[in-house]
Amino acid sequence: MENWNPLGIVGVISAFNFPVAVFGWNNAISLVCGNTTVWKPASTTTLCAIAVTKILEKVFKNNGLQTSLCSLVCGGSYIGKAMANDKHLPLVSFTGSTQVGLEVGVTIQQRFGKHILELGGNNAIIVDEDADIDMVIRASLFACVGTAGQRCTTTRRIFVHENIYDKIVERLADAYGRVRIGDPLDSDTLYGPLHTEQAVQEYEQTIKSAMESGGRCTYGGKRINRPGFYVEPTIITGLPHDSPMVHQETFAPIVYIIPFKQLNDAIAWNNEVEQGLSSSIFTKNLGSIFKWTGPKGSDCGIVNVNIPTNGAEIGGAFGGEKATGGGRESGSDSWKQYMRRSTCTINYSNELPLAQGIKFE
Amino acid sequence: MENWNPLGIVGVISAFNFPVAVFGWNNAISLVCGNTTVWKPASTTTLCAIAVTKILEKVFKNNGLQTSLCSLVCGGSYIGKAMANDKHLPLVSFTGSTQVGLEVGVTIQQRFGKHILELGGNNAIIVDEDADIDMVIRASLFACVGTAGQRCTTTRRIFVHENIYDKIVERLADAYGRVRIGDPLDSDTLYGPLHTEQAVQEYEQTIKSAMESGGRCTYGGKRINRPGFYVEPTIITGLPHDSPMVHQETFAPIVYIIPFKQLNDAIAWNNEVEQGLSSSIFTKNLGSIFKWTGPKGSDCGIVNVNIPTNGAEIGGAFGGEKATGGGRESGSDSWKQYMRRSTCTINYSNELPLAQGIKFE
Amino acid sequence: MENWNPLGIVGVISAFNFPVAVFGWNNAISLVCGNTTVWKPASTTTLCAIAVTKILEKVFKNNGLQTSLCSLVCGGSYIGKAMANDKHLPLVSFTGSTQVGLEVGVTIQQRFGKHILELGGNNAIIVDEDADIDMVIRASLFACVGTAGQRCTTTRRIFVHENIYDKIVERLADAYGRVRIGDPLDSDTLYGPLHTEQAVQEYEQTIKSAMESGGRCTYGGKRINRPGFYVEPTIITGLPHDSPMVHQETFAPIVYIIPFKQLNDAIAWNNEVEQGLSSSIFTKNLGSIFKWTGPKGSDCGIVNVNIPTNGAEIGGAFGGEKATGGGRESGSDSWKQYMRRSTCTINYSNELPLAQGIKFE
Amino acid sequence: MENWNPLGIVGVISAFNFPVAVFGWNNAISLVCGNTTVWKPASTTTLCAIAVTKILEKVFKNNGLQTSLCSLVCGGSYIGKAMANDKHLPLVSFTGSTQVGLEVGVTIQQRFGKHILELGGNNAIIVDEDADIDMVIRASLFACVGTAGQRCTTTRRIFVHENIYDKIVERLADAYGRVRIGDPLDSDTLYGPLHTEQAVQEYEQTIKSAMESGGRCTYGGKRINRPGFYVEPTIITGLPHDSPMVHQETFAPIVYIIPFKQLNDAIAWNNEVEQGLSSSIFTKNLGSIFKWTGPKGSDCGIVNVNIPTNGAEIGGAFGGEKATGGGRESGSDSWKQYMRRSTCTINYSNELPLAQGIKFE
Repeated sequence: MENWNPLGIVGVISAFNFPVAVFGWNNAISLVCGNTTVWKPASTTTLCAIAVTKILEKVFKNNGLQTSLCSLVCGGSYIGKAMANDKHLPLVSFTGSTQVGLEVGVTIQQRFGKHILELGGNNAIIVDEDADIDMVIRASLFACVGTAGQRCTTTRRIFVHENIYDKIVERLADAYGRVRIGDPLDSDTLYGPLHTEQAVQEYEQTIKSAMESGGRCTYGGKRINRPGFYVEPTIITGLPHDSPMVHQETFAPIVYIIPFKQLNDAIAWNNEVEQGLSSSIFTKNLGSIFKWTGPKGSDCGIVNVNIPTNGAEIGGAFGGEKATGGGRESGSDSWKQYMRRSTCTINYSNELPLAQGIKFE
Repeated sequence: MENWNPLGIVGVISAFNFPVAVFGWNNAISLVCGNTTVWKPASTTTLCAIAVTKILEKVFKNNGLQTSLCSLVCGGSYIGKAMANDKHLPLVSFTGSTQVGLEVGVTIQQRFGKHILELGGNNAIIVDEDADIDMVIRASLFACVGTAGQRCTTTRRIFVHENIYDKIVERLADAYGRVRIGDPLDSDTLYGPLHTEQAVQEYEQTIKSAMESGGRCTYGGKRINRPGFYVEPTIITGLPHDSPMVHQETFAPIVYIIPFKQLNDAIAWNNEVEQGLSSSIFTKNLGSIFKWTGPKGSDCGIVNVNIPTNGAEIGGAFGGEKATGGGRESGSDSWKQYMRRSTCTINYSNELPLAQGIKFE
Repeated sequence: MENWNPLGIVGVISAFNFPVAVFGWNNAISLVCGNTTVWKPASTTTLCAIAVTKILEKVFKNNGLQTSLCSLVCGGSYIGKAMANDKHLPLVSFTGSTQVGLEVGVTIQQRFGKHILELGGNNAIIVDEDADIDMVIRASLFACVGTAGQRCTTTRRIFVHENIYDKIVERLADAYGRVRIGDPLDSDTLYGPLHTEQAVQEYEQTIKSAMESGGRCTYGGKRINRPGFYVEPTIITGLPHDSPMVHQETFAPIVYIIPFKQLNDAIAWNNEVEQGLSSSIFTKNLGSIFKWTGPKGSDCGIVNVNIPTNGAEIGGAFGGEKATGGGRESGSDSWKQYMRRSTCTINYSNELPLAQGIKFE
Repeated sequence: MENWNPLGIVGVISAFNFPVAVFGWNNAISLVCGNTTVWKPASTTTLCAIAVTKILEKVFKNNGLQTSLCSLVCGGSYIGKAMANDKHLPLVSFTGSTQVGLEVGVTIQQRFGKHILELGGNNAIIVDEDADIDMVIRASLFACVGTAGQRCTTTRRIFVHENIYDKIVERLADAYGRVRIGDPLDSDTLYGPLHTEQAVQEYEQTIKSAMESGGRCTYGGKRINRPGFYVEPTIITGLPHDSPMVHQETFAPIVYIIPFKQLNDAIAWNNEVEQGLSSSIFTKNLGSIFKWTGPKGSDCGIVNVNIPTNGAEIGGAFGGEKATGGGRESGSDSWKQYMRRSTCTINYSNELPLAQGIKFE
């Protein structure tokens, strides 16, 4: 008999780019599993977190429950470190960068704690020769430019079959030119600013390095001259698949487009980066689709076909392999991570069976 | 759709005390999951490992399979370290001490690898007032003394209700006196030697420290004067539940027997050690049994009732919480650890649904 | 790959005693599975059904859904017969008597349709010598007398260990005497009328036959002299376990109490009736509990311990074996009955594997 | 808690065309589930059954088990009837014709027994315009002609897109001409005789009726002039999809080929027959494939893509809907049919919770 019991207190450390959702899906499963939660939001999203916690407080009070079920701690990275170190938190769910996640994971491992790590991605779309090009353009536009490239599942690399490479680059650049840039609170806006000045600088630094490595800005490449942290959505071509720039995740709306001859190469390139979060192929070929989702296909946690890298079914397990951290949230059996498992054997007889059927007397 | 694909090469590092079984159950599941295996046995059990690998070689050859499916690397801890560090091994399954497992776990975490850790235990039996005493004696004898106390699931602590404490100690000591000590290859022998001279020294050191802390040897406590690493099976009484000696795992046939007044105390004592492998209660009380297996009961991975700590159903998930490492082997869904999970979404329509139902054009 | 697809239109025929709940739990799962529903309530509960359907209509309209998702057909048994015969209803879920259910089941089988049958029960409580007597009295009172004995899970037989038989009979009769009889709309009332005049006549006929067979009314046995279909809650003793009266389900508040010597006999008596819905044991003995829930225990669909026959977890599969019809509703995998299963094999390669690995050319 | 307990004695009635396999997969699961088996083979395959039972006897004896675990009863249909009627067999698994299965199913339903019915099929292959024609020819040849058309999964109807209809008919007829007919014990033979003289007569009668309805024998159509029950493998064209001949299962190597314009029509024709066992589509179109396996696709139990109707994964649930009987054997959760389910609620507290949270005192 296998019993699943609650863990106790679950720590949730959320990233700036989904200031509420990440907490929401961790907290919901955690509560259902019988745990309480301590939440540390990104230091730049404190107000969101306070607002959500106030709503929770109200709900708990209205239902005669203790408001301490969900606690909030705001502040800098020293709080995250303290949580990673704290034996009172059997599980810490961390969403953020690979760099910080590495530290968090090792710290928790040092005390034999449990962790759910949702870290960076360097997500690729493969566009095979037989893909529906209209669909590819619409999907890639959203995947590269949506949320100004600040999703963990944003597409950062596009591998295009050489026979349609020129057409895809041209049409995608054309589509970039029609993106409505503006105030994110305006419902007509498709594309807003980066999160901080530092993000703009990283964007600029990446562009500069890419140019120095031989890349070309097929679209964009500059800061936009308006108040706020606006940068142009950017397409870079001309870099090889294994350029250091291409292998690095820059949390900004930059995509590298690279031609391929053989599908197997494109799959190998998809897999050669450190992270393993999301990945997509656009093709109509049945054999290619099942190769892609099988043992010799994408090594990511999310393996999509004819939808972009940032389309994930909420009912599926969300998360990725390798430097993405290995955690899984939301669907499937991800709830098991929020519980401890007891393998129970109850001897209800008057006999005493011993291990391995041993006689011992 | 959720696909499970093989990981590639799985590393197995096994301990001296189960020189074949640990490899066997890791390797079997790993192969079924489509992986190949590299095995590093304990440096003192090299010959067993070579013999088993020869058998595997024969089986593979007879069935037209490549013998490289299962490889063997013998040697010291430097090999284990190399395996923990090696990105070619997406998963390393390690069975051994908490101390080494801590290092292995952190090393693997530093490269975002996967691990299955099966480390030490400080396993307790709780004997409540209404227990079947004959059963308790037989179970405890095997659990403390079998394999000369060198199982990870060996009972190292017994908490006895104060009303039957004297009787249990007396009868168990009496049973200890009748254990047939001898050559482990003799089928009549119940109790053989420790593994190494070092183990004997650790046994002696633990006895010495326990005596200095106020403990008494109710039975045994000395090296046996015969060739080989034989020590007396040993019962120590008189130490409090939170004595440093009691909280430390010594891989030798030493058990601490401690009286309790309230079941809740005994459960708390069971849980207060670093490790969380196995645990047992002996009682006829239905309420106590379900408390024990529930959220306020044992925090171990194995939670037994009326069978000793070293009786685990092979079909159940084997492993433990906290400093036992958190891994699970053999039964239940433990196979998932040997595979990588892909959450696949296939868009087979001509429409393009976007994440969160966003309109993006 | 296994796909589960909706069936189409599901027919639900509900009984008078749960005029809404039976429809509710069938309809909810059926809708979630993608089906539409046609409901035929008992002819005496038409108004409830119309009211519920009106509520559904409102909900559907408010959410922009077609109100035809849930249809209602009121009338007599000819409608039920038409539904059982109708190939447009791939599944009919019927709750009612064994006699009618037999006819419904055979009619549906004749057209290879699917059915969920929730038919009668002749549910027993076994009270072993070590039972908590206070708990037994409270549980039995509710189980025999609640809803005036008109639940499918009402206890109709109590087997009591001979050593406590007299005490149980006496205390239960005493408890019967304190049941507050009255208007069922009065919140202080514990016990209301039977459903129809016919039910009263069946009650009286059963009492008469039981008396003629040698039974005694230890409590009750008569119609109550007040407007409406009120009868006394009734305890009959003195009949053997295999008396025809005892083996027959009378849908009224009559319970037979019978002493036993050996638990095995009581289990055999529990199983010797035609129906197999619900069953309970009251005991503190671990061995007896697991015998009861195991292969040599109760053959019913609901097998309870220390709670009465009419306590079923809503999350569990509800239903019974043998003449209870074999259907399962509500929890576990009961949803599968509301869908059709496709075993899909997709060959995405360029090779053509044939069945049994045959070469055929 | 859900317990699954054995049923007791399981009856297996097997068909002539798989004289061992059907018993094998029923018996294996049944034994694993803890049941014993009584087997009644087809009256024409008695010797096979005796041989298999002798082997089982030997195995049981060698392992110290009772040979009565698997019993054999040979004889005519009166034995099958007795088994269907017998309350000692809680489950009867019947494989055979729809006509007999209807009788068996109703008989068992009349005693509220359980049944697994694996009855006839009228299996279709749909060949869409973009299919791999070489693959279609090889698949159809095996599916129509293999085992001389005497599999329950034999293809009996082929719906071909009108644009490739002529080519498919021509090439398939050509392939029929190269089938090596001969002694079934000769390993070079692809095609042997029918089972009985009666089968030959039914074959001839069907051909005659088909011709009278306007069909043409594009290939075959006659008895072969050699000793034994040999008939020509036969292709009939020119009949409409809803001809009575096309809707009837003849257990012989006759296939009807019918052109279609719209895929939706072909799917509707696939579904319009009484049986619902197996079905295949040959296409490269992703949208068509998922339509086929989804709610608006094939209504059969086996829904294949690019493999013929008689290719079923042994790990999948085998069986069909509608007049095929609804049973499922072999894979998935088919084992549940061989057991009875107990929904167990154990109250281990000192409180007594009542159904629906009622207060009753």
